[in-house]
Amino acid sequence: MRASTALLTDRYELTMIDAALADGTADRACVFEVFARRLPSGRRYGVVAGTGRLLEAIESFRFDGPALDWIAAEGIVSDRMLEYLREYTFRGDITGYAEGELYFPGSPILQASGTFADAVVLETLILSILNYDSAVASAASRMTQAAIGRPCLEMGSRRAHEDAAVAAARAAVVAGFDGTSNLEAGRRYGLHTIGTAAHAFTLLHDTERDAFVAQVASAGAGTTLLVDTYDIEQGVITAVDVAGRALGAVRLDSGDLPVVAREVREQLDELGASDTRIVVSSDLDEYAIAALAAAPVDSYGVGTSVVTGSGFPTCGMVYKLVLREGEDGAMHAVAKKSSGGKASIGGRKAAGRRIENGLATEEVVFLSPDDDVPVLDEAIAEVGQGELRALQVPLVVAGRIDESYTGPAGVQRARERHAASLDELPRAARRLSAGDPAIPTEVITV
Amino acid sequence: MRASTALLTDRYELTMIDAALADGTADRACVFEVFARRLPSGRRYGVVAGTGRLLEAIESFRFDGPALDWIAAEGIVSDRMLEYLREYTFRGDITGYAEGELYFPGSPILQASGTFADAVVLETLILSILNYDSAVASAASRMTQAAIGRPCLEMGSRRAHEDAAVAAARAAVVAGFDGTSNLEAGRRYGLHTIGTAAHAFTLLHDTERDAFVAQVASAGAGTTLLVDTYDIEQGVITAVDVAGRALGAVRLDSGDLPVVAREVREQLDELGASDTRIVVSSDLDEYAIAALAAAPVDSYGVGTSVVTGSGFPTCGMVYKLVLREGEDGAMHAVAKKSSGGKASIGGRKAAGRRIENGLATEEVVFLSPDDDVPVLDEAIAEVGQGELRALQVPLVVAGRIDESYTGPAGVQRARERHAASLDELPRAARRLSAGDPAIPTEVITV
Repeated sequence: MRASTALLTDRYELTMIDAALADGTADRACVFEVFARRLPSGRRYGVVAGTGRLLEAIESFRFDGPALDWIAAEGIVSDRMLEYLREYTFRGDITGYAEGELYFPGSPILQASGTFADAVVLETLILSILNYDSAVASAASRMTQAAIGRPCLEMGSRRAHEDAAVAAARAAVVAGFDGTSNLEAGRRYGLHTIGTAAHAFTLLHDTERDAFVAQVASAGAGTTLLVDTYDIEQGVITAVDVAGRALGAVRLDSGDLPVVAREVREQLDELGASDTRIVVSSDLDEYAIAALAAAPVDSYGVGTSVVTGSGFPTCGMVYKLVLREGEDGAMHAVAKKSSGGKASIGGRKAAGRRIENGLATEEVVFLSPDDDVPVLDEAIAEVGQGELRALQVPLVVAGRIDESYTGPAGVQRARERHAASLDELPRAARRLSAGDPAIPTEVITV
Repeated sequence: MRASTALLTDRYELTMIDAALADGTADRACVFEVFARRLPSGRRYGVVAGTGRLLEAIESFRFDGPALDWIAAEGIVSDRMLEYLREYTFRGDITGYAEGELYFPGSPILQASGTFADAVVLETLILSILNYDSAVASAASRMTQAAIGRPCLEMGSRRAHEDAAVAAARAAVVAGFDGTSNLEAGRRYGLHTIGTAAHAFTLLHDTERDAFVAQVASAGAGTTLLVDTYDIEQGVITAVDVAGRALGAVRLDSGDLPVVAREVREQLDELGASDTRIVVSSDLDEYAIAALAAAPVDSYGVGTSVVTGSGFPTCGMVYKLVLREGEDGAMHAVAKKSSGGKASIGGRKAAGRRIENGLATEEVVFLSPDDDVPVLDEAIAEVGQGELRALQVPLVVAGRIDESYTGPAGVQRARERHAASLDELPRAARRLSAGDPAIPTEVITV
């Protein structure tokens, strides 16, 4: 279990509960929902990621002694609240889109049910994880689509916060990347780790040849040699001369890649190194990858753009109270009403994706203002036209986490979910060009 | 000390060292430099941040048993390399811009000196921390400038990776923010934590009045009430009715803020609550803050845009080998030569900022291809026209970290450095409008 995640939280989550404990509303049954009002401008779909990490973090969401001492010393909450926090562990339910699933505007990505106190205190953590990981996975998915089957490798650790980098590597693999340079991500999530060498390694040596000799001696001829430190043409000659025709790959990290890749391919073939692959890695994003589709490139090393969500470093997902017990003991749909584009729809939602002839045509969101769960289940089961694939799965039941979504196995499961869901999207909807969401979201009140 | 940071590292750092250990180059004396080739498009200056966090992370950069076991099991490096890692602790020197200092294209932000092995292995960690924290601080600095003295409060945790959020809160405070909603940042770095309430707290209650009564009972009349859940005008009436004229503040989180703020100010004044402040917090960035300059707003709650660097979530800083020992035992300047905009300047640099009549006019970078440190020091000391403020300070000496840059005291020190350096910039250079770097960078070979 990782260190306590409980203080990775906004102060107001605690002060709200403190006030609600005092007036007796803290125990009201509540349902919170995570959704995104819109996709990033021009994007056709989003990818839910971070769910497995979230479950791991919820397991570690306990206020330990040092945390409680600090909260007490700061005078943030009352003694009654400190007692509540001391005993806190999430005892409610969480249902949501399986990790790797696609989402659209208004998709009910996650639902947390429990007392107000139990559920509201997880808000910051839930949103931090889903917003970041989904931003990375959504960008990564476009890149693996653009790569049309060629491997994409995540190398962006240095362009992200050092812990975010681990999450980014994981999210990229969920969305189809084949490996990562990040060692901690490899260890924690069983990911395939990869790496070549930096220009510094070549510069360290008196000659480029010395560097290549050292690398091949250490890593074998199957290694990837970085050939663009001095002069690419000479670098390729030296690389093949040192490693022989068994040279695994050369890496190009600068220059006009479509042109250079073609020249290097010809050169390698002329040198008899026709099995030597070409890896490119210079500020690639999904558009640069698409532009290399016709170039003789074998794999893509992607850095900055994947770990920063390729222009959209967060998803704008929100966590809203949609249903709560009233003084009358009944459940009531609630929603912010004030203007300004931030109004939302109260009531618990159930979601299905309509699949016709194997292709997704619609995101259907059923809304039950009265929280009639059987009616929602029935609505999903009964809808007639085409097939309606249910999208929500139980993730936490009465505080018990479904471990099958966590750890290395969770990543593989999410990766398969992503691939399967993407296969349902019409080809046109997988284009990089800006457009509306790939399928419309229809809200049906039942 | 935090958990080991050693695996927050790219795989190739280890495999390069492995190869260099085998051919004897791992022990060559080296100097690596961190710099940015350019500022984000249109930005006038950047802010160095994360230095204190970096020193803390370097202290924890040890390969512990589980890490070594995993590396061994994966077969990433040789047994010789495992032995090297087992003993690893950084024994070199690090010199750099003090945290909070401004930087420009080509500024030698950080220099790490040591053997190749000792210094290269820190590359990923150094860049992760400086790139993210500096991106946040650079955006935050523009926001505090735009706020012209009104407090800015960081509330963006939910829009960033959960650990990045802690770093973001810290970096925002370095750049002049007054507080953060993030509790862990408050605890770890002694930051002022702040918070109001969410719409969920109002919706939890049967009426808005009930919610306000509960909050005031718990937090006192000096609290900040969120008045835009249903109808702002009615919300303000209820807020003042419940809390009285001693109401601390109202928060507006939606709508056309310049207009609404004015209406609410008039309303508060008419109700006699002329000391009640107005906090706004709806998708603010530096431009929105500037647009509110004439509105009766008392403080700004900033979320998404500050934690994501307001359009530039990473700085593009790189870590390049610039000087290394050769077979001849002498130090040689080295640099990547190949085309593609990624060439760099070899040799160790020393930097000073020329200050004339109290205002910065130039970033002067002295370059000594022969690593003649006394000559560099002399150059800085002797430059005649105007005053030349030396920019580099020792951060790590022979593996010993200067603790005065770490922890809560380090944040305050960085905050003062930021304020003082910003005061040196001409007013025009602090504008939000896009333009060239505020001062030119001149490279002088000595």
